[in-house]
Amino acid sequence: MSGWLAIAGLGPGDEALITPEVTEALAKATDVVGYIPYVARVAERPGLTLHASDNRVEIDRSRHALEMAEAGRRVVVVSSGDPGVFAMAAAIFEAVEVGPAAWRALDIRVLPGITAMLAAAARAGAPLGHDFCAINLSDNLKPWDLIERRLRLAAEADFAMAFYNPRSKSRPEGFAKALDTLRQACGDARPVIFARAVTTPEEEIRVVPLTEARPEMADMRTMVIVGSSRTRIITRDGGPIVYTPRSVPA
Amino acid sequence: MSGWLAIAGLGPGDEALITPEVTEALAKATDVVGYIPYVARVAERPGLTLHASDNRVEIDRSRHALEMAEAGRRVVVVSSGDPGVFAMAAAIFEAVEVGPAAWRALDIRVLPGITAMLAAAARAGAPLGHDFCAINLSDNLKPWDLIERRLRLAAEADFAMAFYNPRSKSRPEGFAKALDTLRQACGDARPVIFARAVTTPEEEIRVVPLTEARPEMADMRTMVIVGSSRTRIITRDGGPIVYTPRSVPA
Repeated sequence: MSGWLAIAGLGPGDEALITPEVTEALAKATDVVGYIPYVARVAERPGLTLHASDNRVEIDRSRHALEMAEAGRRVVVVSSGDPGVFAMAAAIFEAVEVGPAAWRALDIRVLPGITAMLAAAARAGAPLGHDFCAINLSDNLKPWDLIERRLRLAAEADFAMAFYNPRSKSRPEGFAKALDTLRQACGDARPVIFARAVTTPEEEIRVVPLTEARPEMADMRTMVIVGSSRTRIITRDGGPIVYTPRSVPA
Repeated sequence: MSGWLAIAGLGPGDEALITPEVTEALAKATDVVGYIPYVARVAERPGLTLHASDNRVEIDRSRHALEMAEAGRRVVVVSSGDPGVFAMAAAIFEAVEVGPAAWRALDIRVLPGITAMLAAAARAGAPLGHDFCAINLSDNLKPWDLIERRLRLAAEADFAMAFYNPRSKSRPEGFAKALDTLRQACGDARPVIFARAVTTPEEEIRVVPLTEARPEMADMRTMVIVGSSRTRIITRDGGPIVYTPRSVPA
């Protein structure tokens, strides 16, 4: 038996945003591994074993997936969005680096997906149409000071900013601090997009000026995008279009 | 007749990375509009008119697409990668903002795609697994000073960096200057990924330390990713894995 491991992105939620490459890997898999709500998106079928695990056990989950691939299973580790952006690909490679030498010889592939910021941007217009950055606002795995520092430097660089994991029940304060920092650093009414549950039936898109953004506008399922100083709003019936022009005049 | 305009991402090259949503929009279209090599990726069929145009005419192309949608055609504007990242979505909305009021009432949707940096990152490992930025290195539409400034601030923020359009025949010098700036700002041997023609038969992935990166390693079809100070390399037969760990210790 020749096992393999695919680290696959399921996109933001809508099945029409799952790439054929990922669909094919899932069709060939013997085992699917991942966080409970993501594994729940994979259809059950004979010959496929689903291994769902809770949040914050990414390294245990990675080891389990690697052990099964080593034993000859065809394993797909699923993330929502893209597996390379604040998701399972880095966790798998962390496990590979400190694991047995045999794991380096495994057939491991990363199968990209539509990451949340691209889906959210598409729904709002084109806020990421010029230079931008992506920051994970969770301080579970890095010091809060580093997040603050990055926010200030990103504002100074005049990047549009995409924020993953802006707020959770266990971290209610961070996002409020982040908004305060941005208001100090940007000092204007640049647009903030709150894109919740994008491409699902629960999707909600809200656009407010930074001065009116409130922490409770975001939750675990929300992607937040803050425009640069040049981001524009086109008003119209049916909701505004937010976009960042391609050019900056000299 | 009820026209519409979809601004669609064809992904990096491999058909298996085109989302079903985009495939469906192309199947329903009467007209496909875009840059010559991207339109060439769309199969001809009866009832579909292909409108291919050259580079640097994005606003003319946008107006043409909007006029056709207004006239009741079902129009798909195609970009490679994701249309919202340094591509046609921002150009379309620039045209909408200054165009006739009727264009604001059109049915315009952005259909996301796998952008080049995600495809390149997937092939190399997971270099964008922690906070990162995306910068278009072309100074066709912005002053070079702004690019330099963003490179320095991104280095100070210790972002991994993804560079679009690093080098072209008409701009041979910029990327050499960018590498010099990064060597000054980073001052170390962090990994640089040159990912050329990713997911196509011509794909080439090369990983070198920043100290050894040379301008001629990139061309128009190359995506460049520079790791953060924490990016790791796992050596193995079959090419290195480059990844940025999820965590930063306090």
